[in-house]
Amino acid sequence: MANTKAYAATSADSGLAAYAIDRRELRADDVAIEIDYCGVCHSDLHTVENDWGGSKYPVVPGHEIIGRVTAVGSGVTHYKEGDMVGVGCMVDSCRTCSACESGLEQYCLDGSTMTYGGFDRHDGSITHGGYSERIVVSERFVVRIPENLDPASAAPILCAGITTYSPLKHFNVGKGHKVGVLGMGGLGHMGVKIAKALGAEVTIFTRSEAKVAEAKKQGADHVIISTDPEQMKAAKGSFDYLLDTIPVAHDLNPYLNCLSYDGTHILVGLLTPIEPAVQAGLLVTKRRVIAGSLIGGMPETQEVLDFCAEHDITCDVEMLDIRHINEAYERMKKGDVKYRFVIDMKTLKDS
Amino acid sequence: MANTKAYAATSADSGLAAYAIDRRELRADDVAIEIDYCGVCHSDLHTVENDWGGSKYPVVPGHEIIGRVTAVGSGVTHYKEGDMVGVGCMVDSCRTCSACESGLEQYCLDGSTMTYGGFDRHDGSITHGGYSERIVVSERFVVRIPENLDPASAAPILCAGITTYSPLKHFNVGKGHKVGVLGMGGLGHMGVKIAKALGAEVTIFTRSEAKVAEAKKQGADHVIISTDPEQMKAAKGSFDYLLDTIPVAHDLNPYLNCLSYDGTHILVGLLTPIEPAVQAGLLVTKRRVIAGSLIGGMPETQEVLDFCAEHDITCDVEMLDIRHINEAYERMKKGDVKYRFVIDMKTLKDS
Repeated sequence: MANTKAYAATSADSGLAAYAIDRRELRADDVAIEIDYCGVCHSDLHTVENDWGGSKYPVVPGHEIIGRVTAVGSGVTHYKEGDMVGVGCMVDSCRTCSACESGLEQYCLDGSTMTYGGFDRHDGSITHGGYSERIVVSERFVVRIPENLDPASAAPILCAGITTYSPLKHFNVGKGHKVGVLGMGGLGHMGVKIAKALGAEVTIFTRSEAKVAEAKKQGADHVIISTDPEQMKAAKGSFDYLLDTIPVAHDLNPYLNCLSYDGTHILVGLLTPIEPAVQAGLLVTKRRVIAGSLIGGMPETQEVLDFCAEHDITCDVEMLDIRHINEAYERMKKGDVKYRFVIDMKTLKDS
Repeated sequence: MANTKAYAATSADSGLAAYAIDRRELRADDVAIEIDYCGVCHSDLHTVENDWGGSKYPVVPGHEIIGRVTAVGSGVTHYKEGDMVGVGCMVDSCRTCSACESGLEQYCLDGSTMTYGGFDRHDGSITHGGYSERIVVSERFVVRIPENLDPASAAPILCAGITTYSPLKHFNVGKGHKVGVLGMGGLGHMGVKIAKALGAEVTIFTRSEAKVAEAKKQGADHVIISTDPEQMKAAKGSFDYLLDTIPVAHDLNPYLNCLSYDGTHILVGLLTPIEPAVQAGLLVTKRRVIAGSLIGGMPETQEVLDFCAEHDITCDVEMLDIRHINEAYERMKKGDVKYRFVIDMKTLKDS
């Protein structure tokens, strides 16, 4: 399958352009997928521009992949030609450690293999993501797309959806709980929909009065302007959970103060130092918790798709011609997307 | 009961000296206690010297109080004259909020009344602690001292014991878990004993090779020298829990790195900013948690006393003549006590 067409960056400042990549021959447990749609995650942009260091060029981004099975390896049991399937952030892991055995492949003790920019565990080649005609993935890392989900707007469930669903489930969010969502981007708006579907009362924290209407449109029961000291003071001690999707350094202390005793502040967007410093007293005096969470394991990724199908949840997307991906990145830098770009991969054939 | 003899500080730099204080007449639910022993907690020292601000002089410290009931109010049902009882860090709370109704009086939404330096909820007077002949406390905030516990060395269970027991129980520490204990003071050495009794495999982290023998003597299964990068590297990802009793700012990141996925770092000694900053990535990429915990509620304070009696756990104490309390404070500042001073209150009568 050499010479699959893809969009790749060849250096940190080259932008994305059409590129030929190899896709491996099918191994026994492999599924070959023709890609229909691929969501555009902020991680794609960070990796293309090497913001986190360690990017390995050429980078073919994309880990919110939806497509149809075109062929399966001799040992594949769960999928057949024509099935509508998805691939998320991982394509492999050690499969034998305690995390993998618990279906928590994202916490694989040997490190999971990322969909792009990882190293294939068999031949050491660099993995390439979903801005591409095709992908070949071991069936353990393939999920089924429920029939009643619109495939294009389901794509971001594979990253933004699972990233918010996994901690909400793990930390037992449900009926009667008050959940605050910080950040109104791709993750935040999915967090609102999922927390609502889990039965929680949901408040969006936003810095700007101008976003209140949009927050309500997303289904939030309440909106708090986080820059208004009076509103923040009134919210003191009132939340069971805060789902924090903000990807840049921000002061957690005013938010921690909004948590009840035993409240949990869940970080899903931040990877850098927590600055300014957290006041330990805010944790100790109320048994509050700061937790982190990373995407979700494969069983839970299937679960969130089924959950979204059951609750009629999809992502708000803007369809994108892959030839405009560099402009899309520029718009993402300005926060100018509601809430996720999804590439229509037919446009790759035309490019 | 006016003119009860106590030891008090009258200003931040006066030290402690004999002083006369009033103890209230018995209310219906009150228990009058003649004090036999009182543990000396670092909080006493901080309050006497106004390290945290807000100290209200005269300060009569002491919240690890053991004594005998000398009289009870008309409505008291659980205690009678002659009972050996204890009083810990709290003497009252609102009793009606969700926290109080759950037996978590330490997280009372209206603020619990501290044993010393608090305001009595009925008459607004300042509460005075256990460096005193007597104390009068509502029976809800009195606990029973099991017969087979040595009363003097049980005193610190009322603060150091419950402070470590409560989070270990709350976060479900038990058989098969690997627990690291940070800090080898009053809290740390109780944490080791309690975690061992709960069935955990316990490691003490210490900065100095010189403390290894002492750590082993405390019952630790293993010791890690936290200043040795090789030992810290070898411990990467291997702990389920870290019980962090260190009361001053320290870098949490090397310790977080020692936690497995889903590991929990429990702060019980720190109230100040967490500096240097925690790397959010260490939480997110392994679903790790930083939690805080404050003493424990009244039902759990009785529980830890019964647990310690069952498992033959007491605190290692050095008995103190109250006339030497100021020298004891100086020694505590240098960490020169193994592991808790306990005042023999007979010495107050002689003073």
